[in-house]
Amino acid sequence: MTPKPTLAVVGATGAVGSVMLQMLTHHADVWGEIRLLASPRPSGLPPALDATRAGGSRTASVRGEECEILALSEEALEGVDVALFLVPDEVAARWAPIAATKGAVVVDTSAAFRADPDVPLVVPETNAHAARVRPRGIVASPGCTTLALIVAVGSLHAEFGLDELVVTAQQAASGAGAGQDGAEALRAQLGLVAGHDDLGTHPGDVRRAVGENTGPFPGPLALNVLPWSGTPGADGASSEEERVRDETRRILALPALRVAATCVRVPVVTGHSVSVHARFERPVPLDRAHEILATSPGVVLYDDPAAGDFPTPADVVGTDPAWVGRVRRSMDDERALDFFVCADNLRKGAALNALQIAESVVATL
Amino acid sequence: MTPKPTLAVVGATGAVGSVMLQMLTHHADVWGEIRLLASPRPSGLPPALDATRAGGSRTASVRGEECEILALSEEALEGVDVALFLVPDEVAARWAPIAATKGAVVVDTSAAFRADPDVPLVVPETNAHAARVRPRGIVASPGCTTLALIVAVGSLHAEFGLDELVVTAQQAASGAGAGQDGAEALRAQLGLVAGHDDLGTHPGDVRRAVGENTGPFPGPLALNVLPWSGTPGADGASSEEERVRDETRRILALPALRVAATCVRVPVVTGHSVSVHARFERPVPLDRAHEILATSPGVVLYDDPAAGDFPTPADVVGTDPAWVGRVRRSMDDERALDFFVCADNLRKGAALNALQIAESVVATL
Ligand SMILES: NC(=O)c1ccc[n+]([C@@H]2O[C@H](COP(=O)([O-])OP(=O)(O)OC[C@H]3O[C@@H](n4cnc5c(N)ncnc54)[C@H](OP(=O)(O)O)[C@@H]3O)[C@@H](O)[C@H]2O)c1
Ligand SMILES: NC(=O)c1ccc[n+]([C@@H]2O[C@H](COP(=O)([O-])OP(=O)(O)OC[C@H]3O[C@@H](n4cnc5c(N)ncnc54)[C@H](OP(=O)(O)O)[C@@H]3O)[C@@H](O)[C@H]2O)c1
Repeated sequence: MTPKPTLAVVGATGAVGSVMLQMLTHHADVWGEIRLLASPRPSGLPPALDATRAGGSRTASVRGEECEILALSEEALEGVDVALFLVPDEVAARWAPIAATKGAVVVDTSAAFRADPDVPLVVPETNAHAARVRPRGIVASPGCTTLALIVAVGSLHAEFGLDELVVTAQQAASGAGAGQDGAEALRAQLGLVAGHDDLGTHPGDVRRAVGENTGPFPGPLALNVLPWSGTPGADGASSEEERVRDETRRILALPALRVAATCVRVPVVTGHSVSVHARFERPVPLDRAHEILATSPGVVLYDDPAAGDFPTPADVVGTDPAWVGRVRRSMDDERALDFFVCADNLRKGAALNALQIAESVVATL
Repeated sequence: MTPKPTLAVVGATGAVGSVMLQMLTHHADVWGEIRLLASPRPSGLPPALDATRAGGSRTASVRGEECEILALSEEALEGVDVALFLVPDEVAARWAPIAATKGAVVVDTSAAFRADPDVPLVVPETNAHAARVRPRGIVASPGCTTLALIVAVGSLHAEFGLDELVVTAQQAASGAGAGQDGAEALRAQLGLVAGHDDLGTHPGDVRRAVGENTGPFPGPLALNVLPWSGTPGADGASSEEERVRDETRRILALPALRVAATCVRVPVVTGHSVSVHARFERPVPLDRAHEILATSPGVVLYDDPAAGDFPTPADVVGTDPAWVGRVRRSMDDERALDFFVCADNLRKGAALNALQIAESVVATL
């Protein structure tokens, strides 16, 4: 009997990492050693000022055991079979190839390799086969906004052939670059505006109340929405919008797919929502669309608005599937559908998808 | 010299009414008497329990004077030249024709007459001419979501010919049926979730914290978005979504326009935002689109995302124009544009548009 594979969780202390540790505790246990890694954190602060992070050791709980968190280093990656990378882009760009060279299969949630033609971009429900060919030893997991919509869109595409996609994403705070910072900044802002019942009624009053406390956002998020996330891309798009387009094209293997994406940040802690207008090559009977969505793995159809049944981020946070509702004919066009999807950006949007990839890789090791 | 016309403000105490009184104070004073009307409010409560509303008289300030608020009645409509109706649909449906029979030109912000072929649906920047023919003596003002997008879309349509529109609206709380109830409910909910830093991380935790305090919304709005507003329409659309489609078609005189609309309620007090994907009949040079938006009356182009310049509801609340940003080529299609619009749903979305109509009517009396 071969020993169970060793898993490294790189970025175990982050927003995605924390959710990953919970998931590892609840998923079927296919792993031998689980090694937790994070940054070296030579903070320079005296331990009293930076108790959990400076100098001494940090721990985290996984599978009911308290484990020490090691500093990411070449030695710490020795003997790893699968490495989950849940770290910022630049850390992944530097360290994922090192882990791969040492023999690990890397599953990376950052954006560092998502456009690399030698790195498959994988959503197990949609293009599982792609994970089998990985010339660099790295498999990339898409961004959280793409992941919110792709399983539902992919299941319809498989039957009707996707032709055009217009989406507006309402992104939660914890989806911003460094997830924990985003959620904390939103909470701090909500504290600053709470109880001020005149706010939200005069130009800029919320901006003044929030002041410098915008966190990773390009403006106040409490009592507001911000039509900008990520960094400037080409032609007026944001990097997040380009990612939705480029990742959708790659995953569905439709390199010329017409995609219009708008990403708007909303004052929700966790849970991305996407308003989807999709046009297909073939006619889409509504009842068949419902049937597909109701039976596709990873999708829950929750669609009876008159009874109050439609997905919302606050209801789906902490759950695994993509929830779909508001499914309806669009523009009286037999080839067009509108619908609304919500999914937890830290679970299906990151940790869950990466873990699904890792589990499927293990099955073929 | 003819005496200045008499204006009635019916619904002077509501969310739209309160904004109207401010506007009347600041706009050029074309009115003689301004008469304020609201419901009879025979509340039955002892005045101590319902001080401002029961039995005795209510007053409100307009043009720097405290005016008594009269109960809406046939007599109270005598001698009125222009009547602004800022009341619920059913009140408008009953009373607007009575006011018209008594000789007033009615400008109605409710949905009661927006689909009536004998009632023009008017946005002065877009189809001012339509207000001239009013067989029933009534002019309707569109809904707040249509008004947020129509001036910008209309100005581009005039040059390029609109072919298809896909919009997702992020609607503020005060745009819900009875505006004051919506804003109050959102504030009450924010109070209930404030300081609970664990909320927004487990399925339904926000729903439980908000409990029965959903106000006019079909679920919790704090820390959430709700992909449903209005009442059930045909084929899975909400009434709000049908209105955006039907009103846009009427105002632009494009009865067969392809429109896909999704209306999502967001935790913003006042200020609707709309993500717009528009396709035109003719090619749209980007610089010409910018030029049109920068020079159209009622529109402000605010579009330099790298510098943080894009419209947000918290920044545009309390202002008159529709603010447009994020203008960009869509789908590499020379006929398609994406952009983002924000406007104050109580101002351009209701009071301002109605007042503009009323002022244009006065000019022709
Ligand atoms: N948040 C989302 O919804 C989401 C969704 C999809 C994908 N992603 C991607 O997932 C990745 C993690 O996101 P997150 O939201 O979890 O970010 P986060 O909360 O900021 O966590 C970052 C993690 O990376 C670690 N780290 C930072 N610098 C490091 C270094 N030099 N060496 C080793 N570890 C280092 C941090 O450890 P320390 O505690 O030592 O700093 C922490 O564990 C990012 O690439 C993000 O784009 C996020
Ligand atoms: N809120 C928006 O963003 C918005 C935008 C566009 C259009 N609209 C439309 O504008 C209208 C007013 O909306 P709102 O948000 O201002 O509502 P609101 O805050 O609920 O105000 C309703 C107004 O109508 C009066 N009213 C109610 N019943 C009456 C009756 N039987 N007789 C006379 N007056 C009566 C109320 O007076 P009392 O104080 O006596 O109850 C109050 O002044 C609605 O039709 C709405 O659909 C609203």
